[in-house]
Amino acid sequence: MAAKGKIEPRKLKGFWELMPNEQALFSDLLEKLEKVFKQNCFVPLDTPILEYSDVLLAKSGGDVDKEIYRFTKGDTDMCMRYDLTVPLARFVSMHQNELNFPFKRYQIGKVYRGERPQKGRFREFYQCDADIIGDGELSLVADAECVSLFEKCFKELELEVRIEVSNRKILSGYIEELNKSNKATEIFIILDKLDKIPLEDAKAELAELGLSNAEQEKIINLTKNTGKIEEIVKKLRNFCKNPTFQKGLDEFEELAQHLAAFDVKCVVGNLGIIRGHNYYTGTVFEGFLKDGKEAVGAGGRFENLCGYFSEKNMPGVGMSVGITRLFSILTQNGYFKENATDADVSIITFDDTLHAGLNLMTKLRDCGVRADCLYEAKTFKAKMKEANRRNAKYVLIVGEDEVRENLYTLKDMQTSQQEKLKFEDLVKKFTKNA
Amino acid sequence: MAAKGKIEPRKLKGFWELMPNEQALFSDLLEKLEKVFKQNCFVPLDTPILEYSDVLLAKSGGDVDKEIYRFTKGDTDMCMRYDLTVPLARFVSMHQNELNFPFKRYQIGKVYRGERPQKGRFREFYQCDADIIGDGELSLVADAECVSLFEKCFKELELEVRIEVSNRKILSGYIEELNKSNKATEIFIILDKLDKIPLEDAKAELAELGLSNAEQEKIINLTKNTGKIEEIVKKLRNFCKNPTFQKGLDEFEELAQHLAAFDVKCVVGNLGIIRGHNYYTGTVFEGFLKDGKEAVGAGGRFENLCGYFSEKNMPGVGMSVGITRLFSILTQNGYFKENATDADVSIITFDDTLHAGLNLMTKLRDCGVRADCLYEAKTFKAKMKEANRRNAKYVLIVGEDEVRENLYTLKDMQTSQQEKLKFEDLVKKFTKNA
Repeated sequence: MAAKGKIEPRKLKGFWELMPNEQALFSDLLEKLEKVFKQNCFVPLDTPILEYSDVLLAKSGGDVDKEIYRFTKGDTDMCMRYDLTVPLARFVSMHQNELNFPFKRYQIGKVYRGERPQKGRFREFYQCDADIIGDGELSLVADAECVSLFEKCFKELELEVRIEVSNRKILSGYIEELNKSNKATEIFIILDKLDKIPLEDAKAELAELGLSNAEQEKIINLTKNTGKIEEIVKKLRNFCKNPTFQKGLDEFEELAQHLAAFDVKCVVGNLGIIRGHNYYTGTVFEGFLKDGKEAVGAGGRFENLCGYFSEKNMPGVGMSVGITRLFSILTQNGYFKENATDADVSIITFDDTLHAGLNLMTKLRDCGVRADCLYEAKTFKAKMKEANRRNAKYVLIVGEDEVRENLYTLKDMQTSQQEKLKFEDLVKKFTKNA
Repeated sequence: MAAKGKIEPRKLKGFWELMPNEQALFSDLLEKLEKVFKQNCFVPLDTPILEYSDVLLAKSGGDVDKEIYRFTKGDTDMCMRYDLTVPLARFVSMHQNELNFPFKRYQIGKVYRGERPQKGRFREFYQCDADIIGDGELSLVADAECVSLFEKCFKELELEVRIEVSNRKILSGYIEELNKSNKATEIFIILDKLDKIPLEDAKAELAELGLSNAEQEKIINLTKNTGKIEEIVKKLRNFCKNPTFQKGLDEFEELAQHLAAFDVKCVVGNLGIIRGHNYYTGTVFEGFLKDGKEAVGAGGRFENLCGYFSEKNMPGVGMSVGITRLFSILTQNGYFKENATDADVSIITFDDTLHAGLNLMTKLRDCGVRADCLYEAKTFKAKMKEANRRNAKYVLIVGEDEVRENLYTLKDMQTSQQEKLKFEDLVKKFTKNA
């Protein structure tokens, strides 16, 4: 409630906002991912959050999904971006003659979807994408590079990941073989929810689309193929002669060879990986934490990024780390053990040593120690109380004797043990790389 | 122009967007500033870009400036933030019982102002703020900490900065002495543009506000005081007995002592520093690059951050680096010498060494070398052409012999000199800390 005559301070519902310690941990997470992207020769992109509505809605032919934040200002009809892919397509189309292809970019940014807020769903949240865009064509090596990049992201976070990979052409080819290509989208939607609905319901839905009992069994069984990619391919070579199906197997096999060259270890074949997005046309993958059932990221190959904006054919392959979800899983699992915002050491001064304490703090910070002088609390007692309230691990007492002798009293607040240290030894104690 | 049946890909006017190399440099800049903030025990904050309109516009009593992006979705009236200060006030007011005070936070984020686009002015641009908020009161040490932080930001960027500092109470006190406190805002506006308009015009405007000739002279001369803070204070002690004026001198003098404790070197007193914002009430400062006349950042002390939201008194002091302007100055000045997106080395393979090349690339990347295998170009010749087009500095040729001997041919593309190197020596050559 607001105080009298005041506006009640409140945040929009469904918008993510973290407290400082969580925010510091989240920002460390992003920093690590950025490091991986840069290390792997992906370049950063940062597009505006607002775009012309006709550009952002090109895909839907101008139809506005009710989830989208759209408004006009002056004569301009604009939207807040709902993903990072359409802005990438717009950027690549605009600059197709200036960019180096394959164009490898990453982007970490906020996107907006005005859906009903619910647990784990936000109206403003981060996406973290990396894509490789080709000019005209793009080798399957790029698919392997994206899977490898995805694996490296989790390695950098010291998390065990399991990447389940498929190739959409395999199922597409079999659907072609059944003469059901006109129903492909509906069939994929059913196959995508096999682990969420009873088998009988799935079969009934497939029957409605005209698949016989035998065909239902066969296509469902096809999605149950999991294991080493090479073995799945070997097993299915004679399953179906359809050329798309065979091309899917060829690509799947070639991908496995490239993945080996990239030293990718955490990958397994799983034809049950569908990916909701209709635009994936080849490789698709999802990543799971050890024992996890909810994907923490995904990716895949698409035929043409820029179809709405340009006549040039620009195939691509991308990966996305679900950082909002990942962060919430990691927070629940106790992955973050330390308080990221805590100072290394809190400095406590007396009336006549404030400046000596501030100077010591400055010099410690210059050497990489996160020292913080508790200058706000007035008395020694109040300062010690403040240090306790902040859960300070170490307190450095700067009295007249200490300053004179250049020998400071460091108190371990957990053990209550004290030791006298010179400046140089303080730096050594608190810098990790010393 | 759009191709037939296509949407023309275009970006909203006045919205900032960088090409990959510039973006990589800009993101390095932000990374360095973040490092400084963290090192100095400031914690990150990341508030939503959208806020309730009544919250964001609390200051103006709900009046909407035409610059503000405001719209409704469903029943919700919301705005895009136009600065990072109001969201900070909202956050601090909401969480005043959970936060540690003094609360030291930094935030780097996009803000929105729908002003007419012009050179150097954008509708979407970054702000980079760091503030210290007190609970009830806040020591002048915090002012010095902000000035020190500002200096360290530029030190980290290896830029020479000159910080010009004043204390608003000095001029306010003199205006009080003249019995013109009710005209203080107008007087400050005139004094703030002394270096932009002819002196006679300024005097005429001051005369309109009721200042005598002698008073005009005196107040204008007051703003001309520059130099060592202690000397300005000494010189002005007997200038005026007004208690606010004297308090301003006391604070100014105390600040100088704190600044010395923080080892701040690049600071100079200048009573001509006004700062447009009406809410600054004590220390104010602006930062300039060597010989620069346009401020590249600024800051100051304000009496109460949260007055619109809370009955608690929360004084604060902050600093802001004008990163959009700074980046454009640095780009023009040739500060950025390298192409940030270039790979360290481009790998060229033959038909039968693709996988060996990819594996070598993977292993080099794992060791911190930004190696990139040109897998898209088909022939050796096309790959060399591609390396040239990308201005590759080094090309690593991976042929059958190289793989067999584990000895790779590295070609310096500038000198055309070649040498044969083992994997370990390649790593040494391309990692900075080796």
